Amino acid sequence: MKIQKIQGLIAAPFTAMDVEGKLNLSLVKDYYAFLKRNDIKGAFINGSTGEGVSLTLDEKKLHAEAWAAATKDDDEFKVITLVGGTCLADCIDLATHAQAQGLYATAFTAPFYFKPNVNALAEVCKIVADAIPGMPFYYYHIPVLTGVNVAMYDLLNAIDGKIENFAGVKYTHEDFMDFLSCLSLENGKYDMLWGRDENMLSALILGSKGAVGSTYNYAAPLYNNLIAAYENNDFELARKLQQQSIDMIRLLGKYGGIATGKAFMKLIGLDCGEFRLPVKNMTKERFELFKSDVDGVGFQSFKSV
Amino acid sequence: MKIQKIQGLIAAPFTAMDVEGKLNLSLVKDYYAFLKRNDIKGAFINGSTGEGVSLTLDEKKLHAEAWAAATKDDDEFKVITLVGGTCLADCIDLATHAQAQGLYATAFTAPFYFKPNVNALAEVCKIVADAIPGMPFYYYHIPVLTGVNVAMYDLLNAIDGKIENFAGVKYTHEDFMDFLSCLSLENGKYDMLWGRDENMLSALILGSKGAVGSTYNYAAPLYNNLIAAYENNDFELARKLQQQSIDMIRLLGKYGGIATGKAFMKLIGLDCGEFRLPVKNMTKERFELFKSDVDGVGFQSFKSV
Amino acid sequence: MKIQKIQGLIAAPFTAMDVEGKLNLSLVKDYYAFLKRNDIKGAFINGSTGEGVSLTLDEKKLHAEAWAAATKDDDEFKVITLVGGTCLADCIDLATHAQAQGLYATAFTAPFYFKPNVNALAEVCKIVADAIPGMPFYYYHIPVLTGVNVAMYDLLNAIDGKIENFAGVKYTHEDFMDFLSCLSLENGKYDMLWGRDENMLSALILGSKGAVGSTYNYAAPLYNNLIAAYENNDFELARKLQQQSIDMIRLLGKYGGIATGKAFMKLIGLDCGEFRLPVKNMTKERFELFKSDVDGVGFQSFKSV
Amino acid sequence: MKIQKIQGLIAAPFTAMDVEGKLNLSLVKDYYAFLKRNDIKGAFINGSTGEGVSLTLDEKKLHAEAWAAATKDDDEFKVITLVGGTCLADCIDLATHAQAQGLYATAFTAPFYFKPNVNALAEVCKIVADAIPGMPFYYYHIPVLTGVNVAMYDLLNAIDGKIENFAGVKYTHEDFMDFLSCLSLENGKYDMLWGRDENMLSALILGSKGAVGSTYNYAAPLYNNLIAAYENNDFELARKLQQQSIDMIRLLGKYGGIATGKAFMKLIGLDCGEFRLPVKNMTKERFELFKSDVDGVGFQSFKSV
Repeated sequence: MKIQKIQGLIAAPFTAMDVEGKLNLSLVKDYYAFLKRNDIKGAFINGSTGEGVSLTLDEKKLHAEAWAAATKDDDEFKVITLVGGTCLADCIDLATHAQAQGLYATAFTAPFYFKPNVNALAEVCKIVADAIPGMPFYYYHIPVLTGVNVAMYDLLNAIDGKIENFAGVKYTHEDFMDFLSCLSLENGKYDMLWGRDENMLSALILGSKGAVGSTYNYAAPLYNNLIAAYENNDFELARKLQQQSIDMIRLLGKYGGIATGKAFMKLIGLDCGEFRLPVKNMTKERFELFKSDVDGVGFQSFKSV
Repeated sequence: MKIQKIQGLIAAPFTAMDVEGKLNLSLVKDYYAFLKRNDIKGAFINGSTGEGVSLTLDEKKLHAEAWAAATKDDDEFKVITLVGGTCLADCIDLATHAQAQGLYATAFTAPFYFKPNVNALAEVCKIVADAIPGMPFYYYHIPVLTGVNVAMYDLLNAIDGKIENFAGVKYTHEDFMDFLSCLSLENGKYDMLWGRDENMLSALILGSKGAVGSTYNYAAPLYNNLIAAYENNDFELARKLQQQSIDMIRLLGKYGGIATGKAFMKLIGLDCGEFRLPVKNMTKERFELFKSDVDGVGFQSFKSV
Repeated sequence: MKIQKIQGLIAAPFTAMDVEGKLNLSLVKDYYAFLKRNDIKGAFINGSTGEGVSLTLDEKKLHAEAWAAATKDDDEFKVITLVGGTCLADCIDLATHAQAQGLYATAFTAPFYFKPNVNALAEVCKIVADAIPGMPFYYYHIPVLTGVNVAMYDLLNAIDGKIENFAGVKYTHEDFMDFLSCLSLENGKYDMLWGRDENMLSALILGSKGAVGSTYNYAAPLYNNLIAAYENNDFELARKLQQQSIDMIRLLGKYGGIATGKAFMKLIGLDCGEFRLPVKNMTKERFELFKSDVDGVGFQSFKSV
Repeated sequence: MKIQKIQGLIAAPFTAMDVEGKLNLSLVKDYYAFLKRNDIKGAFINGSTGEGVSLTLDEKKLHAEAWAAATKDDDEFKVITLVGGTCLADCIDLATHAQAQGLYATAFTAPFYFKPNVNALAEVCKIVADAIPGMPFYYYHIPVLTGVNVAMYDLLNAIDGKIENFAGVKYTHEDFMDFLSCLSLENGKYDMLWGRDENMLSALILGSKGAVGSTYNYAAPLYNNLIAAYENNDFELARKLQQQSIDMIRLLGKYGGIATGKAFMKLIGLDCGEFRLPVKNMTKERFELFKSDVDGVGFQSFKSV
């Protein structure tokens, strides 16, 4: 299989919930249109931002179907779904379903209860990837959540030549030595998608072309401007924009982590409801404080519209 | 609800698989008889040893049903099933099923992808426990696998008075200060089950009465003798037996961890097949080495029969 | 060299400072008398509690000399000095000095900047121990501070037969499997001193006879009563006393850690001044709160006098 | 004090030892000439690479004096000495000595036994910096060795306006969000020196101008070429050179870590002897293997000469 490289921003959408905490699939069509409007090239659904681990198997399928339906007339927009979890049979079930729905690619992360070493990880990747021949398969590297801190350089060497549809890695970790080594491997064979929005610039200089992230949901113009500044060799501007992204991202730490993302979505007018437990949402009082802090970092000037 | 205290050994059974890696439920009846013969008081199924995380939802239910059927005429033998995972809806589904099947108790562990703090953990415990009113609910504390290292003393204080069927904790961690504090809380209200076979003696002296573990599957006489020695104040003997248990457990480290347990089961003649990926099983060559090492630690003299 | 086993409590004294933060050696004589009065069998000086790492080489020597002088007529009382640090030449210098002063034993911990593996650690132990032939040499195992988490069972196996004056280990870690394995090794050849006051009871049942700790400075009666209760097989009482020790120790966490110890010393009337930076001391306001909390855990009933 | 910014490469020299493991100060003059020849702008002595923690106080002073003497006629070449350790009195002694010797700057790292939080760290920085008024003071951030993982953005905010000679940070950590935030702070007031040779390119794009590292000792041309390529906007070449640096650095992991550096020095003909314990040196057999691997990564083409 010829590996195609993704260029530009892929958003990791939030999964919209209604007031009772049930899936709100009716929002997906608007969500897609919103991302397109902000020059986003695809959606990485059911991932960390999308609370895939908090959804049932059926919900993950319904969510994938909704995105397949919403994007069915758009050959350019790439929908990738995460099928990771601890039960491989479920992963294969979801991957097969994704392929049947015509999604662009499947992503998979390491089982995160019994944590595999590099060889066991290569083996499980193969089992899932082989279930969807011809469909691009990405490994999702996020050791801070999975606890599986295998160097991707070692994984690529372990799978090389053994998994025909292994496309690359969504790299949500901060090991640039490993990341550049992966980019360099076999003349840049693999598609390495950067997953840390707060230091995209340090990945761009290494040759990274595509990125997957959660803040691209609500601040796409900031990052598209950052990429343009980099490509125009205007590094002063690129740094300034990256620092703005950092100031915004620092608010996630201040307001309780991943759930803050849905608060940003409320601000831009695409209400995705709340996160499910065990993630805790902001109280109303905190949300008011949050809004004033958001203005302080210039959000109005670079938010998605 | 009046909390009943468990006394003696609860085994955490392996989930029997056939040669194709499918559930081998036909073994459950023999497994139960075998445990009974070795003076085991109950079974903690679908846990870490039971590969619950590697089973589908349906498989976990079928497994629970098989244990319910095998033990239906035995009022003394306690079957506890772990319903933990990252999706709370699945946990509630499994807990409700366990109650309908008439199992003794439900156990639950912290969601292990998005890791809750103590307050969020108390909240998720309540949601699952409230779904099975009247059925004992245990929290399963195993931070080495979940990455959720909340002190149980803090959890018990957070839930106290709020979850009527919260029975206690299966404590698979080595924080004896925390463990004794839990035992002391409210005049010993909670049932604290020790989960580290290799240092049971250090828990007994603190007043621990019940224990849940994987090596009780194949070396029950060793531990029953250890408890008897302790109760007879024969501490020299108790230490000697604990050291034997350690020598045996050290083989798990040497031969690859949790999968070694199913190798022990082959030795005692109750073949449970292999572990599913991502856990790797011993090769045949390693198994031969393992067998000779097992004799070296005196396994023949204290194995379950 | 015949290894002698230490029985009973060894206190790890605070290093007394004057109001300017200089050594207050004049207090050592009273300190020694105070420990004797409370049935303490020895002093482990210049350790963690003693801020050895915050003292200059000369100060450590002066401190050792003061303890040597104070105890020179007492053949029973054992003074052990820690000579650990990152520079081996300094460690050898201090060990040689300790031997010249006639102290009972030297203790050494792993260099904690470049962290050795077990073989390198065995090598450095030998270099220091060989500088003081005939003087008991203890390894001080405290991975939470050194970051060197080598199993002591592995270290003892690595040094066995190679260091004639290796007496044993001050074990300040919570791995009872490792601890019992060390106690069992070669028919109990090594002197294993327990270093976690908050779970002494779990070590006693394994056969531990000696203990080194900081809370024995100010609450010796509590622990001597605990040991007596254990030896009388009155386990209910032993647990109750251990829980009292835990309640007291929990105050250290609440009031900022190691510096809280010197606050306890003020309460019992042996003012050792303040900790040096980087350790921060309690403010006066916090000290008032602390005093009321201390009464709440029954400190008056079991404090050293 | 006006903060001057360092531009270009600062090497962190190895401390030369003779065959008996004693300081070989006679090599310092040649070492300096060698660094100059390879367009190195300064030397960061007594640091991690320089085994400062394994030297006695007197040795650190003698080493500083030798570098002061060797560079006394060179106003451009900057010698910075690390005075960090766990005893603040020693640090102040060394800093005062460095100032008296006319070195360019003093660096200090967090005490690494009792690990301070950000406020205590700011306090200890002030105490050491205040002892050398007018001399640039750098904080050396290397959490992988000190275990003190305070964000430098927080430290700079904590000390800002309180330490007049605080010049900046030697940043040996991979948190580019924190690093860029420090670069951005108060219009780039602080001198942020990059300390991870293997991803210098990702720091250059953020505006980093100076770097301190160990591989600049023996592969300076590689990095000077990398910087030139970056400044010429030839990013393809810059990436290729960074990848070469990574391939070389991967050999450090393969051959045992920091001690591999002295093996590289032997290859370029400036024999610095061996590392002191607890660091272990390569055996002769390993050294032969190492030499062939070194050729495989193209070392001859970019080594210092």
